[in-house]
Amino acid sequence: MYKIVLMRHGESTWNLENRFTGWTDVDLTPRGVEEAITAGKLLKEKGFEFDIAYTSMLKRANKTLNGVLEQMDQLWIPVEHSWRLNERHYGALQGLNKSETAAKFGEEQVLVWRRSYDVPPPALDLDDPRMEDKAPRYADMKPGEFPRTECLKDTVERFIPYWLETIAPVVKSGKRVVIAAHGNSLRALVKYLDNMSEEAILKLNIPTAQPLVYELDADLKPIKSYYLADPSVIEAAMNAVANQGKAKA
Amino acid sequence: MYKIVLMRHGESTWNLENRFTGWTDVDLTPRGVEEAITAGKLLKEKGFEFDIAYTSMLKRANKTLNGVLEQMDQLWIPVEHSWRLNERHYGALQGLNKSETAAKFGEEQVLVWRRSYDVPPPALDLDDPRMEDKAPRYADMKPGEFPRTECLKDTVERFIPYWLETIAPVVKSGKRVVIAAHGNSLRALVKYLDNMSEEAILKLNIPTAQPLVYELDADLKPIKSYYLADPSVIEAAMNAVANQGKAKA
Repeated sequence: MYKIVLMRHGESTWNLENRFTGWTDVDLTPRGVEEAITAGKLLKEKGFEFDIAYTSMLKRANKTLNGVLEQMDQLWIPVEHSWRLNERHYGALQGLNKSETAAKFGEEQVLVWRRSYDVPPPALDLDDPRMEDKAPRYADMKPGEFPRTECLKDTVERFIPYWLETIAPVVKSGKRVVIAAHGNSLRALVKYLDNMSEEAILKLNIPTAQPLVYELDADLKPIKSYYLADPSVIEAAMNAVANQGKAKA
Repeated sequence: MYKIVLMRHGESTWNLENRFTGWTDVDLTPRGVEEAITAGKLLKEKGFEFDIAYTSMLKRANKTLNGVLEQMDQLWIPVEHSWRLNERHYGALQGLNKSETAAKFGEEQVLVWRRSYDVPPPALDLDDPRMEDKAPRYADMKPGEFPRTECLKDTVERFIPYWLETIAPVVKSGKRVVIAAHGNSLRALVKYLDNMSEEAILKLNIPTAQPLVYELDADLKPIKSYYLADPSVIEAAMNAVANQGKAKA
């Protein structure tokens, strides 16, 4: 009945450096830019067209989207940006790499943050330079909305209202929607759509810049979902993300 | 009181080939992409920030805008696309180069179309493959709105309502606006803002990808306008456009 496409941004510079990224606005690597181009070509080849796009406030998702739309000759479609599609906020872990995090908080504690659905990492202090609540791009956020840290549950709770109130009605109006976002904001949506358990969603690794198609019924319940690329490509991409992903996001 | 920035897209492939472009959706050349990057760096260096951008439905303007916004770290701002910001529609001249146009219509007639404010070139036939009125990107246009040809007067008449109804109120609300468009759609706006004569506007050559700043009073009347780049750079760019521009747009 309806068909939407989800896409995680391509490789970023901090993916490479194995740092917790969260809301830090890092760029794509040249490989990440290439991944977006490949995804756009694949979507075009498979006959996809979009009427509107939703993306985060972060350039790695924005540039992935633009790379895709350029290949599809659809740079002219409306694009809506929202902080609600941003990556999970990693609090005081943002900017730290795997060994720095282990040294500062202990290996065991880091495992708890990584593997739990509802235990957030330490919050940023209000005067931490990583608190970007005064940045112009977040000027429309209400007081208290800017996160100082998030567990995955928090990410789900701020993404799903945007899905329900903003994106879902547009899907139901018949517009063909693409969502270019982040590993954990897409986990939030997938958890909701597929009604997945907390354990199951934590194990799901969404590969970078691989168009993930959801076919939805009249109530926006999934009929089926699938990656556009060949299964062998997806398996390799998922393994890469699972292995890389152990100390970052 | 208010400050807006106008920008013509960078060099396109048909600028190079000296063809009438109009609504044909040609790409930027590598040099055009570089021009956008240079413009973005200049705007950033001069301390500009934008809250919203307006652009056409054509990729040479969209890509120029994205190149600028990326350099300014502002890919997250809202972007509104409208056909009313498209280049002047060149009717049956679209796709022809200078010598083809002269051979088909005669040198003298071509001069009339080039130098007059209100004489449009021949209209496209309704079944001409260059009529893109059925293209998805123009699906929101009302019946009869899709132009089969335009003189500059026509371009003015379809751009200014968009300025008055859509952009001007946003400028007055205090938002900092950038408009990334085309040689003739920007002529339309400049003619209106500066209350220029038909003769004067036809002689004005807006250089490609050079930020043009308008400072406006409370009634959006210009207090002053200036290019951001050094005058020597602008003079060279204007001469290049004037010389190249003799058989195309």
